[in-house]
Amino acid sequence: MNEIKAKLHAPQTKGHVSVAKLTNWWYVACPSGDLKKGPIKRTICGVPMVLFRNKKGDIAALLDRCPHRNVPLSLGAVTKTGQLQCAYHGWEFDTDGGCTKVPCLVGDPDHKGRRVPRFPVREQDGYIWVYAEADTEPEREPFKLPDVDGKYTRVDQWFEVEGSVHAVAENALDVPHTAYLHKGLFRGVGDTTKIQARVERWEDWVECEYIGEQRPEGVVGRMLSPSGGEIKHWDRFFMPSIAQVEYQLGTENHILVNSFITPVTDFITRLYATILFKVRIPGWVLEPVVKPAAMRIFQQDADILKIQTEHIQRFGGEQYVSTDLDLLGPHIWRLMRQAERGDPGPKEYPVVKEIELEV
Amino acid sequence: MNEIKAKLHAPQTKGHVSVAKLTNWWYVACPSGDLKKGPIKRTICGVPMVLFRNKKGDIAALLDRCPHRNVPLSLGAVTKTGQLQCAYHGWEFDTDGGCTKVPCLVGDPDHKGRRVPRFPVREQDGYIWVYAEADTEPEREPFKLPDVDGKYTRVDQWFEVEGSVHAVAENALDVPHTAYLHKGLFRGVGDTTKIQARVERWEDWVECEYIGEQRPEGVVGRMLSPSGGEIKHWDRFFMPSIAQVEYQLGTENHILVNSFITPVTDFITRLYATILFKVRIPGWVLEPVVKPAAMRIFQQDADILKIQTEHIQRFGGEQYVSTDLDLLGPHIWRLMRQAERGDPGPKEYPVVKEIELEV
Amino acid sequence: MNEIKAKLHAPQTKGHVSVAKLTNWWYVACPSGDLKKGPIKRTICGVPMVLFRNKKGDIAALLDRCPHRNVPLSLGAVTKTGQLQCAYHGWEFDTDGGCTKVPCLVGDPDHKGRRVPRFPVREQDGYIWVYAEADTEPEREPFKLPDVDGKYTRVDQWFEVEGSVHAVAENALDVPHTAYLHKGLFRGVGDTTKIQARVERWEDWVECEYIGEQRPEGVVGRMLSPSGGEIKHWDRFFMPSIAQVEYQLGTENHILVNSFITPVTDFITRLYATILFKVRIPGWVLEPVVKPAAMRIFQQDADILKIQTEHIQRFGGEQYVSTDLDLLGPHIWRLMRQAERGDPGPKEYPVVKEIELEV
Repeated sequence: MNEIKAKLHAPQTKGHVSVAKLTNWWYVACPSGDLKKGPIKRTICGVPMVLFRNKKGDIAALLDRCPHRNVPLSLGAVTKTGQLQCAYHGWEFDTDGGCTKVPCLVGDPDHKGRRVPRFPVREQDGYIWVYAEADTEPEREPFKLPDVDGKYTRVDQWFEVEGSVHAVAENALDVPHTAYLHKGLFRGVGDTTKIQARVERWEDWVECEYIGEQRPEGVVGRMLSPSGGEIKHWDRFFMPSIAQVEYQLGTENHILVNSFITPVTDFITRLYATILFKVRIPGWVLEPVVKPAAMRIFQQDADILKIQTEHIQRFGGEQYVSTDLDLLGPHIWRLMRQAERGDPGPKEYPVVKEIELEV
Repeated sequence: MNEIKAKLHAPQTKGHVSVAKLTNWWYVACPSGDLKKGPIKRTICGVPMVLFRNKKGDIAALLDRCPHRNVPLSLGAVTKTGQLQCAYHGWEFDTDGGCTKVPCLVGDPDHKGRRVPRFPVREQDGYIWVYAEADTEPEREPFKLPDVDGKYTRVDQWFEVEGSVHAVAENALDVPHTAYLHKGLFRGVGDTTKIQARVERWEDWVECEYIGEQRPEGVVGRMLSPSGGEIKHWDRFFMPSIAQVEYQLGTENHILVNSFITPVTDFITRLYATILFKVRIPGWVLEPVVKPAAMRIFQQDADILKIQTEHIQRFGGEQYVSTDLDLLGPHIWRLMRQAERGDPGPKEYPVVKEIELEV
Repeated sequence: MNEIKAKLHAPQTKGHVSVAKLTNWWYVACPSGDLKKGPIKRTICGVPMVLFRNKKGDIAALLDRCPHRNVPLSLGAVTKTGQLQCAYHGWEFDTDGGCTKVPCLVGDPDHKGRRVPRFPVREQDGYIWVYAEADTEPEREPFKLPDVDGKYTRVDQWFEVEGSVHAVAENALDVPHTAYLHKGLFRGVGDTTKIQARVERWEDWVECEYIGEQRPEGVVGRMLSPSGGEIKHWDRFFMPSIAQVEYQLGTENHILVNSFITPVTDFITRLYATILFKVRIPGWVLEPVVKPAAMRIFQQDADILKIQTEHIQRFGGEQYVSTDLDLLGPHIWRLMRQAERGDPGPKEYPVVKEIELEV
């Protein structure tokens, strides 16, 4: 069929989009509790996967396609003996992806051609992590949350966002947009002061430290630190897709927001947020105020990311103009591209940059 | 416009899909009763057609596009004189596709450039059949239902299914899936016995005979043959797209399920089922039990075929692994491909294969 | 990802569609009253634009994309100082497209890379016109409505139509379809008389004059001229996309229907109709009859154009067969193609053609 090419369209860019194919890495597939026996399906790096647990509790992540007639294995069931059974013809597979039964067949069901590709899995920090390269030995282990004592509260929440990993991570770690997109919720637009930001990029992570930052205005800020004063604030990105924001207000307030960003496809991500915090005010006092505000902030970010994504596609790619204020976005993209290309990067680390901002 | 190609996607196959372009063949367009005067529209082999009857009752199937400004002729009306009139500017056409009127035009309306391509049609066995190649003499006649006596009941039902002709035909003739996809309805999963299957492939059809098969378990089976016992069972495929299942239980029970599968587009088909049966139990007793069961079976098949089709597209094609149990599917594809390529096939017929199954 | 190409599809044309890229021309963006302060968004020739007014009332039409992170500027707001502020990071732009503020940035916001492309605008005849080529000096001025005295009534109405500019303009100026598509509303199908049509094509417009035409039958016709009699009737097309129908019935009835057709994308247009009329019967008497009839005619045209467009896409392009009765359509396309190609056209104007019709 002839496709009729549009003559009238938005001015087209050179087609660049900040999407990297990084399959030799770990991604969160789901919270541990979401996988009882299974099967459940997840898409990671565009690859449909089926997850299930066998009788011993071992977890498997297999390619979600029956080798026989190509229907999703996730339509099936886990048998009493812990095998994953296809819904169409009843073929069964174990956690290694091997075929253990072909109903009606006279003879051995096991056969090389009937194997299903298997992805490495780990259960750690309350999440099931999947390594996005099948039938391989992982080069590394998943990102580990820091050990915290009993004074910390942990809150988990996940969101599906229509944006690339890069766009979502940049947004999660960006300061200037908070005064506009989240006007009144996070930081206000009023008198400004100059502060310093120092960026250090390492081989597989990058950190920005803010020096001289005052307690942010707005509802959230007032709750966190009623007495005001300087705060310590770091924004970090860890390869391949973890955004971390850390706030320290004196010794009694400490907040660590971890966003595990899983690429579903190029422009759809799942953001699994785990917030660890210890604050002056008890959690049960904070929650009714902080949770609605946080949800609203996340929703505003999700909305703008969706529109940004659609607009980038309409123009056939990104055409970004960055300033010094885009402290982490360009570094995040450099890290992703280096890893994708197998590029060793600069000879010496850290790469350091200091800038001044008016906030 | 630049199309942004996805970087993150399912592992891609070599792009094969079991779809053949077989236009020198007859397909059911609709039951006879669906075409009064018309016009009605149908898509066969991807081609939009308009069907209508003239005053004498002659049927025409024309390309559903007015040569003037390319709107569908099926939007129009059949005039009192039996001409098909376009809804936009009122051009009229006869059953041969010739232009008989151009309103406002001074002069002869007939003109080579104003002809509409015409497809051969037949009315037979309660169906209107269309030959999918325009302006040509058919190489053969449509498939003929066997003549049966008055003891037989005929039931007709049609379904639209999101699957290729090959996938739908293979499904219609496949035995092993019935125990899983139609669990409890058709045959159960219990003790198994070994039976034989003998496949004979001819130039334009293929048959599988099952030897030693017992009455199937489940509701349908129990109704058909309360006394149990061996049954005779043949599955057949006739080119280009007819699936036939025949059951014989003694001399008093005989069931012939004919599925006329019309390719609408590559992955959409219409299945026109005509069931001829003569059974021990009167039809009016059977109907309240058999019809809901049959409809449920068809719906389960339609559901899995839709999901299979979507999954195949996601992976960029099929990657099937067949076993000996896939008795007819590979033969059906061979027949379709031979016909599509004009390949004469093997020198001697029938091609025979015998296998053993546990059912 | 492999795209699975359809094997079964409508017979494909050579891919021609009557769509021209004519950006060095003026198009109606919206009625003046639709733009208060703004911002509002419009798509013209496929290009997303944002329109706003500054404090002085100056209008700007900018490319609707923030140079920073590519979100639509139309999501933002016009500030108290009359700047267009982006919703994401608060960047501000003036009516020239220059960047006047980057929040948090220490230093001058103005920078060549931060400019937004600007489209010429005019406010005239109650419409905002935009020139579809950015950052350029227009080669001409927008089409001007004739000055009419106080005896004329003006009615404005706009419609979104799924059809190319060519298809919409041809339809707006076509006579033969009115007896079929608008049966009973505009002109009937009864006894016919022969009339003459004389077409004159100039460099950037084409006119058809009908000679000997009688008052049309039907509701609208009877209202306009109860006494019947010959009418004067001209259909005109002005480049790039203006269709004009003029009727004169004696000295007391004069109707001028102007359709300003704005290409949104290849196959979506907005038709801004401005009707100027002076009739024997007072406007308030006519309105309850004429308006519903006019709206119904427009809806019937919009419906057939949408179906025509979909059908053309299904066949991979147009395959039109024109007759002498297609008085303006082929000329309109010639004018559009000439302008698109920069082709000077014939040496002498006007190009004249006379034909006879039976109406």
